Amino acid sequence: MQKIGFIGIGNLGLPIAENLLKAGHQLKVYNRTREKALPLEKLGAEIVDSPVAAIEKGGIVFTLVSDDAALRDIVTPAFLAALGTGGVHASMSTISPVTAGELAALHKKEGSIYIASPVFARPEAAAAKMGNAAISGDAAGKERIRQLLLDGFAKNIFDMGTKPENANVMKLIGNFMIAGAMELMAESFVLAEKNGLDAKAAYELLTTTLFTGPIFRNYGAMILNREFEGERSFKASLGLKDIDLVLETARNSYTPMPIANLVHQRLLTVLSKGRRDADWVALATGALNDAGLK
Amino acid sequence: MQKIGFIGIGNLGLPIAENLLKAGHQLKVYNRTREKALPLEKLGAEIVDSPVAAIEKGGIVFTLVSDDAALRDIVTPAFLAALGTGGVHASMSTISPVTAGELAALHKKEGSIYIASPVFARPEAAAAKMGNAAISGDAAGKERIRQLLLDGFAKNIFDMGTKPENANVMKLIGNFMIAGAMELMAESFVLAEKNGLDAKAAYELLTTTLFTGPIFRNYGAMILNREFEGERSFKASLGLKDIDLVLETARNSYTPMPIANLVHQRLLTVLSKGRRDADWVALATGALNDAGLK
Repeated sequence: MQKIGFIGIGNLGLPIAENLLKAGHQLKVYNRTREKALPLEKLGAEIVDSPVAAIEKGGIVFTLVSDDAALRDIVTPAFLAALGTGGVHASMSTISPVTAGELAALHKKEGSIYIASPVFARPEAAAAKMGNAAISGDAAGKERIRQLLLDGFAKNIFDMGTKPENANVMKLIGNFMIAGAMELMAESFVLAEKNGLDAKAAYELLTTTLFTGPIFRNYGAMILNREFEGERSFKASLGLKDIDLVLETARNSYTPMPIANLVHQRLLTVLSKGRRDADWVALATGALNDAGLK
Repeated sequence: MQKIGFIGIGNLGLPIAENLLKAGHQLKVYNRTREKALPLEKLGAEIVDSPVAAIEKGGIVFTLVSDDAALRDIVTPAFLAALGTGGVHASMSTISPVTAGELAALHKKEGSIYIASPVFARPEAAAAKMGNAAISGDAAGKERIRQLLLDGFAKNIFDMGTKPENANVMKLIGNFMIAGAMELMAESFVLAEKNGLDAKAAYELLTTTLFTGPIFRNYGAMILNREFEGERSFKASLGLKDIDLVLETARNSYTPMPIANLVHQRLLTVLSKGRRDADWVALATGALNDAGLK
Protein backbone atom coordinates (compact mmCIF):
# COMPACT_ATOMS: atom_id res chain seq x y z
CA MET A 1 0.00 0.00 0.00
CA GLN A 2 1.22 3.46 -0.91
CA LYS A 3 -0.10 6.98 -0.36
CA ILE A 4 -0.43 8.61 -3.74
CA GLY A 5 -1.56 11.93 -5.11
CA PHE A 6 -3.55 11.65 -8.32
CA ILE A 7 -4.27 14.74 -10.41
CA GLY A 8 -6.52 14.57 -13.46
CA ILE A 9 -9.67 12.44 -13.62
CA GLY A 10 -10.59 12.25 -17.27
CA ASN A 11 -11.53 9.31 -19.50
CA LEU A 12 -8.20 7.64 -18.73
CA GLY A 13 -7.55 8.96 -15.24
CA LEU A 14 -10.80 7.57 -13.87
CA PRO A 15 -10.16 3.86 -14.60
CA ILE A 16 -6.51 4.16 -13.54
CA ALA A 17 -7.41 5.79 -10.21
CA GLU A 18 -10.10 3.15 -9.68
CA ASN A 19 -7.57 0.38 -10.27
CA LEU A 20 -5.09 1.93 -7.83
CA LEU A 21 -7.80 2.18 -5.16
CA LYS A 22 -8.91 -1.40 -5.76
CA ALA A 23 -5.27 -2.50 -5.41
CA GLY A 24 -5.36 -1.07 -1.88
CA HIS A 25 -3.54 2.22 -2.32
CA GLN A 26 -4.61 5.43 -0.54
CA LEU A 27 -5.35 8.23 -2.98
CA LYS A 28 -5.74 11.96 -2.58
CA VAL A 29 -7.41 13.04 -5.78
CA TYR A 30 -7.66 16.45 -7.43
CA ASN A 31 -9.62 17.30 -10.54
CA ARG A 32 -10.41 20.75 -11.92
CA THR A 33 -14.04 19.72 -12.30
CA ARG A 34 -14.56 18.24 -8.86
CA GLU A 35 -17.74 16.32 -9.79
CA LYS A 36 -15.85 14.01 -12.12
CA ALA A 37 -13.76 12.76 -9.20
CA LEU A 38 -16.68 12.07 -6.89
CA PRO A 39 -17.26 8.44 -8.03
CA LEU A 40 -13.86 7.67 -6.50
CA GLU A 41 -14.99 8.63 -2.98
CA LYS A 42 -16.94 5.43 -2.48
CA LEU A 43 -13.75 3.50 -3.30
CA GLY A 44 -12.03 5.36 -0.45
CA ALA A 45 -10.36 8.27 -2.24
CA GLU A 46 -10.08 11.64 -0.53
CA ILE A 47 -11.08 14.42 -2.94
CA VAL A 48 -8.98 17.54 -2.36
CA ASP A 49 -9.33 21.14 -3.52
CA SER A 50 -5.95 21.85 -5.06
CA PRO A 51 -3.09 20.00 -6.72
CA VAL A 52 -0.83 20.88 -3.80
CA ALA A 53 -3.27 19.33 -1.31
CA ALA A 54 -2.89 15.98 -3.12
CA ILE A 55 0.85 15.77 -2.41
CA GLU A 56 2.83 14.27 0.49
CA LYS A 57 6.40 15.50 1.04
CA GLY A 58 8.80 12.95 -0.48
CA GLY A 59 5.83 10.99 -1.83
CA ILE A 60 4.51 10.08 -5.23
CA VAL A 61 2.12 12.12 -7.35
CA PHE A 62 0.61 11.13 -10.67
CA THR A 63 -0.62 13.68 -13.18
CA LEU A 64 -2.75 12.90 -16.22
CA VAL A 65 -4.07 16.04 -17.86
CA SER A 66 -5.09 17.09 -21.34
CA ASP A 67 -2.16 19.17 -22.53
CA ASP A 68 1.11 20.97 -21.84
CA ALA A 69 -0.57 24.14 -20.57
CA ALA A 70 -2.69 22.24 -18.04
CA LEU A 71 0.39 20.46 -16.71
CA ARG A 72 2.43 23.66 -16.49
CA ASP A 73 -0.41 25.27 -14.53
CA ILE A 74 -0.17 22.44 -12.00
CA VAL A 75 3.60 22.43 -11.56
CA THR A 76 3.88 25.70 -9.59
CA PRO A 77 6.63 26.59 -7.10
CA ALA A 78 4.17 25.55 -4.35
CA PHE A 79 3.72 22.16 -6.04
CA LEU A 80 7.47 21.61 -6.19
CA ALA A 81 7.88 22.72 -2.58
CA ALA A 82 5.14 20.34 -1.44
CA LEU A 83 6.71 17.42 -3.31
CA GLY A 84 10.03 18.20 -1.62
CA THR A 85 13.31 16.31 -1.68
CA GLY A 86 13.03 12.76 -2.99
CA GLY A 87 9.44 13.10 -4.15
CA VAL A 88 8.49 11.54 -7.47
CA HIS A 89 6.18 13.12 -10.03
CA ALA A 90 4.98 10.48 -12.51
CA SER A 91 3.74 12.45 -15.49
CA MET A 92 1.36 10.34 -17.58
CA SER A 93 0.06 13.03 -19.92
CA THR A 94 0.86 13.09 -23.63
CA ILE A 95 2.89 16.28 -23.80
CA SER A 96 5.70 17.85 -25.74
CA PRO A 97 9.18 16.42 -25.12
CA VAL A 98 10.30 20.04 -24.72
CA THR A 99 7.90 20.55 -21.80
CA ALA A 100 8.98 17.23 -20.29
CA GLY A 101 12.64 18.25 -20.44
CA GLU A 102 11.94 21.63 -18.85
CA LEU A 103 9.78 20.18 -16.07
CA ALA A 104 12.38 17.49 -15.36
CA ALA A 105 15.00 20.20 -14.89
CA LEU A 106 12.71 22.16 -12.53
CA HIS A 107 12.14 19.09 -10.38
CA LYS A 108 15.82 18.24 -10.27
CA LYS A 109 16.63 21.75 -9.04
CA GLU A 110 14.28 21.19 -6.09
CA GLY A 111 15.63 17.71 -5.34
CA SER A 112 12.60 15.81 -6.62
CA ILE A 113 12.30 13.46 -9.58
CA TYR A 114 10.23 13.83 -12.76
CA ILE A 115 9.43 10.56 -14.52
CA ALA A 116 7.69 10.50 -17.89
CA SER A 117 5.28 7.58 -17.92
CA PRO A 118 2.76 8.11 -20.70
CA VAL A 119 -0.11 5.68 -21.09
CA PHE A 120 -0.56 3.48 -24.17
CA ALA A 121 -4.17 2.43 -23.75
CA ARG A 122 -7.70 3.40 -24.53
CA PRO A 123 -9.85 3.74 -21.39
CA GLU A 124 -11.31 0.23 -21.64
CA ALA A 125 -7.83 -1.31 -21.93
CA ALA A 126 -6.56 0.75 -19.00
CA ALA A 127 -9.53 -0.41 -16.92
CA ALA A 128 -8.62 -4.03 -17.73
CA LYS A 129 -4.92 -3.39 -16.90
CA MET A 130 -4.11 -4.35 -20.47
CA GLY A 131 -2.36 -1.08 -21.27
CA ASN A 132 1.33 -0.43 -21.82
CA ALA A 133 3.62 2.12 -20.23
CA ALA A 134 6.77 3.72 -21.56
CA ILE A 135 8.93 5.25 -18.84
CA SER A 136 12.00 7.44 -18.87
CA GLY A 137 14.02 9.38 -16.33
CA ASP A 138 15.99 8.75 -13.14
CA ALA A 139 16.49 5.00 -12.49
CA ALA A 140 15.52 5.07 -8.79
CA GLY A 141 12.43 7.15 -9.57
CA LYS A 142 11.34 4.66 -12.24
CA GLU A 143 11.76 1.83 -9.75
CA ARG A 144 9.51 3.55 -7.19
CA ILE A 145 6.56 3.85 -9.57
CA ARG A 146 6.90 0.53 -11.43
CA GLN A 147 4.44 -1.49 -9.32
CA LEU A 148 1.96 1.41 -9.30
CA LEU A 149 1.89 1.47 -13.11
CA LEU A 150 1.15 -2.27 -13.10
CA ASP A 151 -1.54 -1.80 -10.44
CA GLY A 152 -3.04 1.13 -12.33
CA PHE A 153 -3.22 0.15 -16.01
CA ALA A 154 -0.12 -1.52 -17.45
CA LYS A 155 0.46 -5.05 -18.61
CA ASN A 156 3.98 -4.18 -19.78
CA ILE A 157 6.44 -1.42 -18.94
CA PHE A 158 9.00 -0.36 -21.53
CA ASP A 159 12.07 1.48 -20.28
CA MET A 160 13.11 4.21 -22.71
CA GLY A 161 16.24 5.25 -20.82
CA THR A 162 17.24 8.03 -18.46
CA LYS A 163 16.61 11.08 -20.67
CA PRO A 164 13.33 12.32 -19.17
CA GLU A 165 11.60 13.23 -22.43
CA ASN A 166 12.31 9.91 -24.22
CA ALA A 167 9.06 8.27 -23.16
CA ASN A 168 7.17 11.29 -24.50
CA VAL A 169 8.88 10.96 -27.89
CA MET A 170 7.90 7.28 -27.79
CA LYS A 171 4.29 8.15 -27.01
CA LEU A 172 4.16 10.59 -29.93
CA ILE A 173 5.62 7.94 -32.24
CA GLY A 174 2.99 5.47 -31.07
CA ASN A 175 0.15 7.86 -31.77
CA PHE A 176 1.64 8.85 -35.10
CA MET A 177 1.81 5.17 -36.06
CA ILE A 178 -1.82 4.66 -35.06
CA ALA A 179 -3.01 7.67 -37.03
CA GLY A 180 -0.99 6.57 -40.04
CA ALA A 181 -2.38 3.03 -39.79
CA MET A 182 -5.93 4.42 -39.76
CA GLU A 183 -5.21 6.46 -42.90
CA LEU A 184 -3.67 3.39 -44.58
CA MET A 185 -6.75 1.32 -43.84
CA ALA A 186 -9.08 4.07 -44.94
CA GLU A 187 -7.35 4.39 -48.32
CA SER A 188 -7.32 0.59 -48.69
CA PHE A 189 -10.97 0.06 -47.85
CA VAL A 190 -11.98 2.87 -50.21
CA LEU A 191 -9.99 1.28 -53.05
CA ALA A 192 -11.72 -2.03 -52.31
CA GLU A 193 -15.22 -0.54 -52.23
CA LYS A 194 -14.71 1.46 -55.39
CA ASN A 195 -13.57 -1.67 -57.23
CA GLY A 196 -16.36 -3.98 -56.19
CA LEU A 197 -14.34 -5.87 -53.59
CA ASP A 198 -16.02 -6.42 -50.22
CA ALA A 199 -13.99 -4.28 -47.79
CA LYS A 200 -14.89 -6.73 -45.00
CA ALA A 201 -13.16 -9.54 -46.91
CA ALA A 202 -10.09 -7.35 -47.36
CA TYR A 203 -10.18 -6.52 -43.64
CA GLU A 204 -10.34 -10.20 -42.69
CA LEU A 205 -7.39 -11.14 -44.89
CA LEU A 206 -5.24 -8.23 -43.71
CA THR A 207 -5.96 -8.56 -39.99
CA THR A 208 -5.49 -12.33 -39.84
CA THR A 209 -2.26 -12.46 -41.86
CA LEU A 210 -0.02 -9.45 -42.26
CA PHE A 211 -1.55 -6.83 -39.95
CA THR A 212 -2.58 -8.74 -36.85
CA GLY A 213 -2.16 -6.08 -34.17
CA PRO A 214 -5.04 -4.57 -32.18
CA ILE A 215 -4.81 -1.26 -34.02
CA PHE A 216 -5.71 -2.78 -37.36
CA ARG A 217 -8.25 -5.13 -35.81
CA ASN A 218 -10.08 -2.55 -33.68
CA TYR A 219 -9.81 0.67 -35.64
CA GLY A 220 -10.23 -1.27 -38.88
CA ALA A 221 -13.60 -2.56 -37.67
CA MET A 222 -14.63 0.96 -36.65
CA ILE A 223 -13.80 2.24 -40.15
CA LEU A 224 -15.62 -0.66 -41.82
CA ASN A 225 -18.71 -0.07 -39.68
CA ARG A 226 -18.47 3.72 -39.91
CA GLU A 227 -18.35 3.95 -36.11
CA PHE A 228 -16.86 7.40 -35.84
CA GLU A 229 -18.29 8.38 -32.47
CA GLY A 230 -18.24 6.54 -29.20
CA GLU A 231 -19.06 7.00 -25.54
CA ARG A 232 -15.55 6.43 -24.18
CA SER A 233 -13.83 7.59 -27.32
CA PHE A 234 -10.45 9.20 -27.86
CA LYS A 235 -11.58 12.51 -29.26
CA ALA A 236 -10.40 13.88 -32.58
CA SER A 237 -9.47 17.13 -30.80
CA LEU A 238 -7.06 15.23 -28.55
CA GLY A 239 -5.70 13.31 -31.52
CA LEU A 240 -5.07 16.62 -33.28
CA LYS A 241 -3.18 17.88 -30.23
CA ASP A 242 -0.97 14.78 -30.32
CA ILE A 243 -0.22 15.15 -34.02
CA ASP A 244 0.47 18.86 -33.38
CA LEU A 245 3.14 17.65 -30.94
CA VAL A 246 4.51 15.14 -33.46
CA LEU A 247 4.92 17.92 -36.02
CA GLU A 248 6.41 20.29 -33.43
CA THR A 249 8.93 17.63 -32.41
CA ALA A 250 9.64 16.85 -36.06
CA ARG A 251 10.10 20.53 -36.80
CA ASN A 252 12.45 21.07 -33.87
CA SER A 253 14.60 18.14 -34.93
CA TYR A 254 14.43 18.88 -38.68
CA THR A 255 12.60 15.64 -39.48
CA PRO A 256 10.36 15.72 -42.57
CA MET A 257 7.36 13.43 -41.92
CA PRO A 258 4.93 13.49 -44.85
CA ILE A 259 2.44 11.03 -43.32
CA ALA A 260 2.34 13.12 -40.13
CA ASN A 261 1.45 16.13 -42.26
CA LEU A 262 -1.25 14.15 -44.01
CA VAL A 263 -2.99 12.86 -40.86
CA HIS A 264 -2.75 16.37 -39.40
CA GLN A 265 -4.74 17.69 -42.36
CA ARG A 266 -7.22 14.83 -41.98
CA LEU A 267 -7.87 15.72 -38.33
CA LEU A 268 -8.23 19.42 -39.18
CA THR A 269 -10.89 18.43 -41.71
CA VAL A 270 -12.78 16.37 -39.11
CA LEU A 271 -12.86 19.36 -36.75
CA SER A 272 -13.60 21.85 -39.52
CA LYS A 273 -16.85 19.98 -40.04
CA GLY A 274 -17.77 20.58 -36.43
CA ARG A 275 -17.63 16.92 -35.41
CA ARG A 276 -16.74 17.67 -31.78
CA ASP A 277 -17.80 14.25 -30.50
CA ALA A 278 -15.91 12.37 -33.17
CA ASP A 279 -13.35 9.75 -32.20
CA TRP A 280 -10.02 10.38 -33.91
CA VAL A 281 -10.69 7.35 -36.13
CA ALA A 282 -12.97 9.80 -37.97
CA LEU A 283 -9.80 10.90 -39.78
CA ALA A 284 -10.74 7.99 -42.06
CA THR A 285 -13.65 10.07 -43.36
CA GLY A 286 -11.06 12.10 -45.26
CA ALA A 287 -10.20 9.27 -47.64
CA LEU A 288 -13.85 8.18 -47.80
CA ASN A 289 -15.23 11.61 -48.59
CA ASP A 290 -12.44 12.48 -51.04
CA ALA A 291 -13.50 9.41 -53.03
CA GLY A 292 -17.19 10.30 -52.92
CA LEU A 293 -18.11 7.76 -50.22
CA LYS A 294 -19.92 8.36 -46.94
CA MET B 1 -1.62 -36.40 -57.68
CA GLN B 2 -2.45 -33.99 -60.47
CA LYS B 3 -0.83 -33.15 -63.80
CA ILE B 4 -0.11 -29.46 -63.80
CA GLY B 5 1.46 -26.95 -66.15
CA PHE B 6 3.64 -24.38 -64.39
CA ILE B 7 4.81 -21.29 -66.24
CA GLY B 8 7.24 -18.84 -64.65
CA ILE B 9 10.15 -19.94 -62.47
CA GLY B 10 11.31 -16.80 -60.66
CA ASN B 11 12.10 -16.14 -56.98
CA LEU B 12 8.57 -17.19 -56.02
CA GLY B 13 7.82 -19.70 -58.77
CA LEU B 14 10.81 -21.87 -57.90
CA PRO B 15 9.86 -22.72 -54.28
CA ILE B 16 6.19 -23.15 -55.22
CA ALA B 17 7.00 -25.56 -58.07
CA GLU B 18 9.38 -27.43 -55.74
CA ASN B 19 6.63 -27.81 -53.15
CA LEU B 20 4.15 -29.09 -55.75
CA LEU B 21 6.67 -31.67 -56.96
CA LYS B 22 7.46 -32.76 -53.39
CA ALA B 23 3.72 -33.14 -52.78
CA GLY B 24 3.70 -35.73 -55.58
CA HIS B 25 2.23 -33.75 -58.47
CA GLN B 26 3.50 -34.13 -62.05
CA LEU B 27 4.69 -30.82 -63.49
CA LYS B 28 5.42 -29.66 -67.00
CA VAL B 29 7.42 -26.49 -66.51
CA TYR B 30 8.12 -23.60 -68.84
CA ASN B 31 10.37 -20.65 -68.16
CA ARG B 32 11.58 -18.03 -70.64
CA THR B 33 15.12 -18.51 -69.33
CA ARG B 34 15.25 -22.29 -69.45
CA GLU B 35 18.29 -22.61 -67.13
CA LYS B 36 16.33 -21.27 -64.16
CA ALA B 37 13.92 -24.20 -64.40
CA LEU B 38 16.61 -26.90 -64.60
CA PRO B 39 16.91 -27.47 -60.81
CA LEU B 40 13.34 -28.80 -60.97
CA GLU B 41 14.32 -31.67 -63.26
CA LYS B 42 15.89 -33.69 -60.48
CA LEU B 43 12.60 -33.43 -58.59
CA GLY B 44 10.89 -35.00 -61.58
CA ALA B 45 9.63 -32.00 -63.54
CA GLU B 46 9.56 -32.07 -67.32
CA ILE B 47 11.00 -28.86 -68.75
CA VAL B 48 9.18 -27.85 -71.93
CA ASP B 49 9.96 -25.32 -74.65
CA SER B 50 6.79 -23.28 -74.86
CA PRO B 51 3.87 -22.27 -72.63
CA VAL B 52 1.51 -24.28 -74.80
CA ALA B 53 3.61 -27.44 -74.33
CA ALA B 54 3.04 -27.19 -70.56
CA ILE B 55 -0.75 -27.50 -70.88
CA GLU B 56 -3.07 -30.56 -70.92
CA LYS B 57 -6.53 -30.15 -72.45
CA GLY B 58 -9.04 -29.60 -69.67
CA GLY B 59 -6.21 -29.52 -67.15
CA ILE B 60 -4.74 -26.98 -64.78
CA VAL B 61 -2.03 -24.46 -65.57
CA PHE B 62 -0.39 -22.05 -63.17
CA THR B 63 1.27 -18.86 -64.31
CA LEU B 64 3.52 -16.67 -62.17
CA VAL B 65 5.26 -14.01 -64.22
CA SER B 66 6.62 -10.54 -63.61
CA ASP B 67 4.00 -8.28 -65.15
CA ASP B 68 0.89 -7.79 -67.27
CA ALA B 69 2.79 -7.78 -70.57
CA ALA B 70 4.52 -11.09 -69.83
CA LEU B 71 1.19 -12.70 -68.97
CA ARG B 72 -0.55 -11.33 -72.07
CA ASP B 73 2.31 -12.72 -74.19
CA ILE B 74 1.61 -16.16 -72.74
CA VAL B 75 -2.16 -16.17 -73.14
CA THR B 76 -2.25 -16.54 -76.95
CA PRO B 77 -5.08 -18.11 -78.99
CA ALA B 78 -2.93 -21.29 -79.10
CA PHE B 79 -2.70 -21.26 -75.29
CA LEU B 80 -6.47 -20.94 -74.94
CA ALA B 81 -7.04 -23.67 -77.53
CA ALA B 82 -4.63 -26.00 -75.70
CA LEU B 83 -6.34 -25.38 -72.36
CA GLY B 84 -9.67 -26.24 -73.99
CA THR B 85 -13.11 -26.63 -72.45
CA GLY B 86 -13.09 -26.97 -68.67
CA GLY B 87 -9.42 -26.18 -68.28
CA VAL B 88 -8.39 -23.93 -65.38
CA HIS B 89 -5.76 -21.21 -65.55
CA ALA B 90 -4.67 -20.20 -62.05
CA SER B 91 -3.03 -16.82 -62.46
CA MET B 92 -0.73 -16.08 -59.52
CA SER B 93 0.99 -12.97 -60.87
CA THR B 94 0.46 -9.53 -59.39
CA ILE B 95 -1.20 -7.82 -62.31
CA SER B 96 -3.71 -5.12 -63.08
CA PRO B 97 -7.35 -5.91 -62.26
CA VAL B 98 -8.12 -4.63 -65.77
CA THR B 99 -5.89 -7.29 -67.33
CA ALA B 100 -7.41 -9.94 -65.05
CA GLY B 101 -10.91 -8.98 -66.11
CA GLU B 102 -10.00 -9.07 -69.80
CA LEU B 103 -8.20 -12.41 -69.56
CA ALA B 104 -11.09 -13.90 -67.60
CA ALA B 105 -13.47 -12.91 -70.40
CA LEU B 106 -11.16 -14.44 -73.04
CA HIS B 107 -11.04 -17.75 -71.16
CA LYS B 108 -14.79 -17.80 -70.66
CA LYS B 109 -15.33 -17.35 -74.39
CA GLU B 110 -13.27 -20.49 -75.02
CA GLY B 111 -15.00 -22.50 -72.28
CA SER B 112 -12.10 -22.47 -69.83
CA ILE B 113 -11.83 -20.81 -66.43
CA TYR B 114 -9.52 -18.03 -65.29
CA ILE B 115 -8.93 -17.89 -61.54
CA ALA B 116 -6.97 -15.07 -59.94
CA SER B 117 -4.87 -16.53 -57.14
CA PRO B 118 -2.12 -14.06 -56.27
CA VAL B 119 0.50 -15.03 -53.74
CA PHE B 120 0.94 -13.25 -50.41
CA ALA B 121 4.40 -14.44 -49.43
CA ARG B 122 8.05 -13.69 -49.75
CA PRO B 123 10.00 -16.61 -51.28
CA GLU B 124 11.12 -18.02 -47.91
CA ALA B 125 7.53 -18.03 -46.61
CA ALA B 126 6.28 -19.67 -49.82
CA ALA B 127 8.98 -22.34 -49.47
CA ALA B 128 7.76 -23.05 -45.93
CA LYS B 129 4.10 -23.14 -47.07
CA MET B 130 3.43 -20.24 -44.72
CA GLY B 131 2.08 -17.95 -47.42
CA ASN B 132 -1.48 -16.78 -48.00
CA ALA B 133 -3.60 -16.90 -51.13
CA ALA B 134 -6.48 -14.71 -52.21
CA ILE B 135 -8.65 -16.30 -54.87
CA SER B 136 -11.49 -15.03 -57.02
CA GLY B 137 -13.49 -16.27 -59.99
CA ASP B 138 -15.72 -19.21 -60.88
CA ALA B 139 -16.63 -21.31 -57.83
CA ALA B 140 -15.92 -24.72 -59.41
CA GLY B 141 -12.58 -23.48 -60.75
CA LYS B 142 -11.57 -22.22 -57.30
CA GLU B 143 -12.44 -25.62 -55.84
CA ARG B 144 -10.21 -27.43 -58.34
CA ILE B 145 -7.09 -25.48 -57.42
CA ARG B 146 -7.63 -25.16 -53.65
CA GLN B 147 -5.52 -28.17 -52.59
CA LEU B 148 -2.80 -27.23 -55.06
CA LEU B 149 -2.46 -23.78 -53.49
CA LEU B 150 -2.11 -25.44 -50.08
CA ASP B 151 0.44 -27.91 -51.48
CA GLY B 152 2.35 -25.14 -53.22
CA PHE B 153 2.70 -22.27 -50.76
CA ALA B 154 -0.45 -21.35 -48.81
CA LYS B 155 -1.29 -21.73 -45.16
CA ASN B 156 -4.63 -19.94 -45.66
CA ILE B 157 -6.84 -19.26 -48.66
CA PHE B 158 -9.11 -16.24 -48.65
CA ASP B 159 -12.05 -16.26 -51.04
CA MET B 160 -12.66 -12.81 -52.53
CA GLY B 161 -15.78 -13.75 -54.46
CA THR B 162 -16.66 -14.59 -58.04
CA LYS B 163 -15.58 -11.38 -59.81
CA PRO B 164 -12.29 -12.57 -61.38
CA GLU B 165 -10.27 -9.42 -60.68
CA ASN B 166 -11.18 -9.14 -56.98
CA ALA B 167 -8.18 -11.11 -55.76
CA ASN B 168 -5.91 -8.84 -57.77
CA VAL B 169 -7.42 -5.75 -56.14
CA MET B 170 -6.82 -7.50 -52.80
CA LYS B 171 -3.20 -8.20 -53.68
CA LEU B 172 -2.63 -4.57 -54.63
CA ILE B 173 -4.20 -3.45 -51.35
CA GLY B 174 -1.91 -5.81 -49.46
CA ASN B 175 1.21 -4.48 -51.13
CA PHE B 176 0.04 -0.89 -50.68
CA MET B 177 -0.44 -1.56 -46.97
CA ILE B 178 3.05 -3.07 -46.70
CA ALA B 179 4.66 -0.15 -48.51
CA GLY B 180 2.75 2.32 -46.34
CA ALA B 181 3.75 0.45 -43.18
CA MET B 182 7.41 0.64 -44.20
CA GLU B 183 7.12 4.40 -44.74
CA LEU B 184 5.37 4.78 -41.35
CA MET B 185 8.16 2.92 -39.60
CA ALA B 186 10.84 4.84 -41.45
CA GLU B 187 9.36 8.20 -40.40
CA SER B 188 8.97 6.93 -36.82
CA PHE B 189 12.49 5.57 -36.46
CA VAL B 190 13.92 8.77 -37.91
CA LEU B 191 11.97 10.86 -35.40
CA ALA B 192 13.31 8.64 -32.60
CA GLU B 193 16.93 8.83 -33.74
CA LYS B 194 16.85 12.57 -34.23
CA ASN B 195 15.48 13.04 -30.72
CA GLY B 196 17.95 10.84 -28.87
CA LEU B 197 15.57 7.91 -28.42
CA ASP B 198 16.98 4.47 -29.27
CA ALA B 199 15.02 3.39 -32.36
CA LYS B 200 15.50 -0.24 -31.30
CA ALA B 201 13.61 0.47 -28.05
CA ALA B 202 10.81 2.11 -30.04
CA TYR B 203 10.74 -0.89 -32.39
CA GLU B 204 10.47 -3.32 -29.46
CA LEU B 205 7.59 -1.44 -27.87
CA LEU B 206 5.68 -1.06 -31.14
CA THR B 207 6.11 -4.62 -32.39
CA THR B 208 5.25 -6.29 -29.09
CA THR B 209 2.17 -4.21 -28.30
CA LEU B 210 0.27 -2.34 -31.00
CA PHE B 211 1.90 -3.47 -34.25
CA THR B 212 2.55 -7.16 -33.81
CA GLY B 213 2.23 -8.43 -37.38
CA PRO B 214 5.11 -9.88 -39.41
CA ILE B 215 5.34 -6.80 -41.62
CA PHE B 216 6.30 -4.52 -38.74
CA ARG B 217 8.48 -7.18 -37.14
CA ASN B 218 10.42 -8.20 -40.26
CA TYR B 219 10.60 -5.03 -42.34
CA GLY B 220 11.05 -2.98 -39.16
CA ALA B 221 14.17 -4.97 -38.30
CA MET B 222 15.49 -4.50 -41.84
CA ILE B 223 15.02 -0.73 -41.55
CA LEU B 224 16.64 -0.63 -38.10
CA ASN B 225 19.63 -2.63 -39.34
CA ARG B 226 19.81 -0.81 -42.68
CA GLU B 227 19.46 -4.11 -44.53
CA PHE B 228 18.31 -2.74 -47.86
CA GLU B 229 19.59 -5.52 -50.10
CA GLY B 230 19.15 -9.27 -49.83
CA GLU B 231 19.76 -12.43 -51.79
CA ARG B 232 16.12 -13.51 -52.06
CA SER B 233 14.74 -10.04 -51.88
CA PHE B 234 11.59 -8.51 -53.32
CA LYS B 235 13.15 -5.97 -55.63
CA ALA B 236 12.34 -2.28 -55.54
CA SER B 237 11.64 -2.42 -59.29
CA LEU B 238 8.89 -5.01 -58.69
CA GLY B 239 7.53 -2.99 -55.78
CA LEU B 240 7.38 0.04 -58.05
CA LYS B 241 5.43 -1.97 -60.62
CA ASP B 242 2.93 -2.97 -57.93
CA ILE B 243 2.47 0.60 -56.73
CA ASP B 244 2.10 1.67 -60.38
CA LEU B 245 -0.84 -0.77 -60.51
CA VAL B 246 -2.28 0.58 -57.26
CA LEU B 247 -2.24 4.10 -58.68
CA GLU B 248 -3.65 2.93 -62.01
CA THR B 249 -6.48 1.13 -60.23
CA ALA B 250 -7.03 4.17 -58.00
CA ARG B 251 -7.07 6.43 -61.03
CA ASN B 252 -9.53 4.26 -62.93
CA SER B 253 -11.90 4.19 -59.97
CA TYR B 254 -11.40 7.87 -59.02
CA THR B 255 -9.86 7.04 -55.63
CA PRO B 256 -7.43 9.62 -54.24
CA MET B 257 -4.72 7.75 -52.26
CA PRO B 258 -2.11 10.17 -50.91
CA ILE B 259 0.00 7.50 -49.19
CA ALA B 260 0.11 5.49 -52.42
CA ASN B 261 1.44 8.60 -54.17
CA LEU B 262 4.04 9.05 -51.44
CA VAL B 263 5.42 5.50 -51.53
CA HIS B 264 5.45 5.69 -55.33
CA GLN B 265 7.76 8.70 -55.13
CA ARG B 266 9.91 6.89 -52.55
CA LEU B 267 10.40 3.92 -54.89
CA LEU B 268 11.20 6.21 -57.82
CA THR B 269 13.90 7.78 -55.66
CA VAL B 270 15.40 4.38 -54.82
CA LEU B 271 15.63 3.51 -58.50
CA SER B 272 16.81 6.98 -59.52
CA LYS B 273 19.88 6.33 -57.39
CA GLY B 274 20.62 3.23 -59.42
CA ARG B 275 20.03 0.78 -56.58
CA ARG B 276 19.01 -2.06 -58.87
CA ASP B 277 19.60 -4.75 -56.28
CA ALA B 278 17.70 -2.96 -53.55
CA ASP B 279 14.82 -4.67 -51.77
CA TRP B 280 11.70 -2.53 -51.81
CA VAL B 281 12.20 -1.89 -48.09
CA ALA B 282 14.82 0.57 -49.37
CA LEU B 283 11.91 2.98 -49.77
CA ALA B 284 12.70 3.72 -46.11
CA THR B 285 15.88 5.48 -47.25
CA GLY B 286 13.65 8.32 -48.44
CA ALA B 287 12.65 9.35 -44.92
CA LEU B 288 16.17 8.66 -43.62
CA ASN B 289 17.95 10.68 -46.28
CA ASP B 290 15.43 13.53 -46.20
CA ALA B 291 16.28 13.93 -42.52
CA GLY B 292 20.03 13.81 -43.11
CA LEU B 293 20.51 10.23 -41.93
CA LYS B 294 22.15 7.35 -43.78
